[in-house]
Amino acid sequence: MCGIVGYIGGREAAPFLVEGLRRLEYRGYDSAGAAFLVGGRVVINKATGRVSALAGALLGAGHGARTGIGHTRWATHGRPSDRNAHPHPDCQGRIAVVHNGIVENYRELKEELAAAGHRFASETDTEVLAHLVESQRNGDGLAQAVRRALRRVEGTFALAVLSADDPEVLIAARHGSPLIVGEGEGERLLASDIPALLPFTRDQLVLDDGEVAILTRDGVEVSRLLDGARTVRHAARVEWDLATAEKGGEPHFMRKEILEQPRALRDTLCGRVGLDGLPRLEELALGAGEARALEHVELIACGTSWHAGLVATRHLAELARLRASAEVASEYRYRPALPLGAEGGGKALVVAVSQSGETADTLAAMRAAAAGGARPVAVVNVVGSSIAREAEGVLYTRAGPEISVASTKAFSTQVATLFLLAAHLGRLRGTLSESGARELLAALGRVPDQLEAMLPEVAAQARALAPRLLDKRGALYLGRGYGFPLALEGALKLKEITYLHADGYPAGEMKHGPIALVGPQTLVVVVAPQDRLHAKTLSNLEEVKARDGFVVAIGTEGDRELARLADAVFWLPPAPEPLNPLLAAAPLQLLAYELSVALGRDVDQPRNLAKSVTVE
Amino acid sequence: MCGIVGYIGGREAAPFLVEGLRRLEYRGYDSAGAAFLVGGRVVINKATGRVSALAGALLGAGHGARTGIGHTRWATHGRPSDRNAHPHPDCQGRIAVVHNGIVENYRELKEELAAAGHRFASETDTEVLAHLVESQRNGDGLAQAVRRALRRVEGTFALAVLSADDPEVLIAARHGSPLIVGEGEGERLLASDIPALLPFTRDQLVLDDGEVAILTRDGVEVSRLLDGARTVRHAARVEWDLATAEKGGEPHFMRKEILEQPRALRDTLCGRVGLDGLPRLEELALGAGEARALEHVELIACGTSWHAGLVATRHLAELARLRASAEVASEYRYRPALPLGAEGGGKALVVAVSQSGETADTLAAMRAAAAGGARPVAVVNVVGSSIAREAEGVLYTRAGPEISVASTKAFSTQVATLFLLAAHLGRLRGTLSESGARELLAALGRVPDQLEAMLPEVAAQARALAPRLLDKRGALYLGRGYGFPLALEGALKLKEITYLHADGYPAGEMKHGPIALVGPQTLVVVVAPQDRLHAKTLSNLEEVKARDGFVVAIGTEGDRELARLADAVFWLPPAPEPLNPLLAAAPLQLLAYELSVALGRDVDQPRNLAKSVTVE
Repeated sequence: MCGIVGYIGGREAAPFLVEGLRRLEYRGYDSAGAAFLVGGRVVINKATGRVSALAGALLGAGHGARTGIGHTRWATHGRPSDRNAHPHPDCQGRIAVVHNGIVENYRELKEELAAAGHRFASETDTEVLAHLVESQRNGDGLAQAVRRALRRVEGTFALAVLSADDPEVLIAARHGSPLIVGEGEGERLLASDIPALLPFTRDQLVLDDGEVAILTRDGVEVSRLLDGARTVRHAARVEWDLATAEKGGEPHFMRKEILEQPRALRDTLCGRVGLDGLPRLEELALGAGEARALEHVELIACGTSWHAGLVATRHLAELARLRASAEVASEYRYRPALPLGAEGGGKALVVAVSQSGETADTLAAMRAAAAGGARPVAVVNVVGSSIAREAEGVLYTRAGPEISVASTKAFSTQVATLFLLAAHLGRLRGTLSESGARELLAALGRVPDQLEAMLPEVAAQARALAPRLLDKRGALYLGRGYGFPLALEGALKLKEITYLHADGYPAGEMKHGPIALVGPQTLVVVVAPQDRLHAKTLSNLEEVKARDGFVVAIGTEGDRELARLADAVFWLPPAPEPLNPLLAAAPLQLLAYELSVALGRDVDQPRNLAKSVTVE
Repeated sequence: MCGIVGYIGGREAAPFLVEGLRRLEYRGYDSAGAAFLVGGRVVINKATGRVSALAGALLGAGHGARTGIGHTRWATHGRPSDRNAHPHPDCQGRIAVVHNGIVENYRELKEELAAAGHRFASETDTEVLAHLVESQRNGDGLAQAVRRALRRVEGTFALAVLSADDPEVLIAARHGSPLIVGEGEGERLLASDIPALLPFTRDQLVLDDGEVAILTRDGVEVSRLLDGARTVRHAARVEWDLATAEKGGEPHFMRKEILEQPRALRDTLCGRVGLDGLPRLEELALGAGEARALEHVELIACGTSWHAGLVATRHLAELARLRASAEVASEYRYRPALPLGAEGGGKALVVAVSQSGETADTLAAMRAAAAGGARPVAVVNVVGSSIAREAEGVLYTRAGPEISVASTKAFSTQVATLFLLAAHLGRLRGTLSESGARELLAALGRVPDQLEAMLPEVAAQARALAPRLLDKRGALYLGRGYGFPLALEGALKLKEITYLHADGYPAGEMKHGPIALVGPQTLVVVVAPQDRLHAKTLSNLEEVKARDGFVVAIGTEGDRELARLADAVFWLPPAPEPLNPLLAAAPLQLLAYELSVALGRDVDQPRNLAKSVTVE
């Protein structure tokens, strides 16, 4: 997650770059920078910090320049630092590159380039691109060099390249990360999203994956990266207002964020599964000895993140044979402190989970654990946040900014990240076989596509279902095993945005009290994919049906028994049991979303709530 | 908890004894027996098993007898066995005793009597009474001997004694356990409760503590145990019908059981606090070495028992510095099995908690734990139940039979029993000082009296409050620390018997979602006694008040700040923080009870529920 901007035209480039970066700051804000063509030279200005703090310096550095590229960063490879900030130059300082995405084979490329004499100034994968373009120059123009360079790259990218030797062009390319070209009178603009360009032009062209664009003052030439064939593309007029544009055309941030989960999950996984198909979490810096010495894992979190933690306790038990607890941070922090670290170093692994990385209770609980001898690890979304900074190791979820108060993509990316952690620990501890890990990770890699395929149908179904639920007075969400934390999460979503009472329960607990709630005015949502406990969950469902509950089920395609028992079913594609939570979350989110809309609630800003809870 | 009957009169004694015992079987049914005077001899017939199975044998043994005593047992000292069943004879077989209660100084007495030549046939404390009476005979009659014997006894008792040498009398005495005398035409009857006598006579006399009664065919003479002074007592006519009588005059079992919690807690504690003021749980048979080797405790339970387990996790952390988890049995049993027992024996202590001792999921979870190497301990109410039988050690809660589906006294006695376990482990592990333990246990000993003192006011207040809550659509129960499991339990009670949606949450989690539910139609119940977290809970309450929630608080007497913030407050007497759950449970129970009554629900048999869940 980074933001990119670019300008070539008759006006000063710097003011546009600064304004565009401000609008893209949600995509990352640990550092920013710009490169300009000034008097036949490339001038780069970059530093850690927010765009607003750097605006003066950027405007000064770009004075007089009519071509420039800019970047606001969300660190993936290399910590936030001045050196690691973009743009990155080549050896001669004649080329500059900004990049959003991950170059997966950057080590291999870097070694090769270094052997050929290239000198690197940063720890980033992006710098490799600048040198790669430099190495591919042979007099036939910048676009050809970029094209040849990118054919050697594995991974995802949106990038912009300028060169002092090609002052009339700006090169852009896209594969897996968004990039938009804006067209104005005698100027062409570049940005990572539509809204950033809207104040300047409504005529926009969304690049497709695998396309390269050559921008000049007066036109855009789009061609295919693979074979260089020209593609005829025209800018379309964007009729959205700014507010709609920020929601990607969706009526609410929540829906936008639910629907972008396939993308978010791809980002989460990116670079964390090796070419050998095994988990690669080097960012964690946890050795096999340490992993084997672990006796238990304590996850601390609040709200939705706590539910992700509860899913993870099951992953950790199954894949790493570790006893794990997930505890609400506001309780954990005030518990009597129990010994955490053994003398030898770390019998307990403490993992703090937080979207914002600023959750006050989680931060305090993590500090309490650290004071007790733990070396806590954090799973957070916002780079450089307090929890990320104070943890001994960080796994970023890379969900991108979550604006909706009701958390959706943060949850699924947390679950995916924690799953990777469990698989990683399982490998280190020798409790997960190589073939078992490969199988699971291959299936995990398919989840974003599966999700993408099922989302349109699920969304349509949820919308059709909502009007039938308007008379419900409350809801009971049920699940077993991996389904239980999902039941809690589904119930929380409903509470948050519809203000209906909703209880999440292990399905087996229903008979110990909650079943008294079941009647015609009670919505019963059951998470019952095909798994080891499926038959037991179905029996519980029979009990509900016998009491006239309205049953919405989430199950695996082809489950006739479930279809018979439920009033409505959301179907999931088949997946290994531990991955079901990643698929089951979206129907629960969309169900709550559509019911909230149908009830006329304020979806994105539900009453009484705030996004990031930085007080107790 | 045992049941006692007695008969002296002109009819056959055996049919009355059998019928009376059947009616008292709820007080215990692991074994039963009777003693008759037949032809100048004492004939005893007793065995393990239910009364119904023994009825034929008892009727046969008592053929022709017009004086007899009977007993149905709930084992406290000594396992259920034929030998340990009551009645117990003296050395000559001329005296027989049935007893309900506990002789706390029985070891000391037994040694003394054994030294004097008495021979004991059982492991019970009761047998000591028979020999003690025998030793105190000096020709002045059975009543005098009993009186002298009982003056040497520490503990509680209701007992009946007959002697072949005093065929015209039956002696009864009471101290701490109930005993009722019934008067008929030419016959006197004895039983542990009023309903057992109702089919035979409505003229009944309830013995007071410290009284001895001499029953003859034609009269009853009551005197004081201490000084032998006669007291003038007359039978009163019981106007209750049988159904009311079984509820002790209350409209519902639930209310009866809530109100008898002081008695239930006294029974729980009885004999488990030594004369030195320290915990005494010999029944557990857990050595100091084993206790020190423990690394964590896993509590497994369902429903209300799970909430007691959650309270216990906090007790175990605080008093025994043990990491403890309480997990829903239906989830625990299907989790991947993790190693439990270390080679040396028991790094994990597994504790199964169940009122009935028959809960299917808890039993299966306990078996899974045992298969994984644990030696599980059980905390159950029903003696001889499956869970009690299969556990390696049992702590009986001694709540007495719980008829109401919504569990009340079972919960508080579970909490008290688990507290004793935590204190016991704390002493064995050296994490709880002697003085600390004494202080806590002395405070624990005061809880039944405190509860008894506050209950009438709390009951009246709950009744007055209920009509004001009829418009509420749902409830949010909040608490921190020890208050959180209480919030869960309060919410469950409400759900079970009012069918209103109710959520229990750690107060600190409210801002992460549930606060969206707060509005004028939401009842907010907050458990906020004076404790370390009190100020934080009050801040959460401010947030609720700011959103027009109707707040019912449970707090400590004199808390003005709480009184200001709440619409109604139930006051608790001051107590050490870990004991607050024992005091706070009753207001939550009575609140749910009165609202259920006000809503016209079937309190004792709420819809969809059953008492003991013996299926998955």
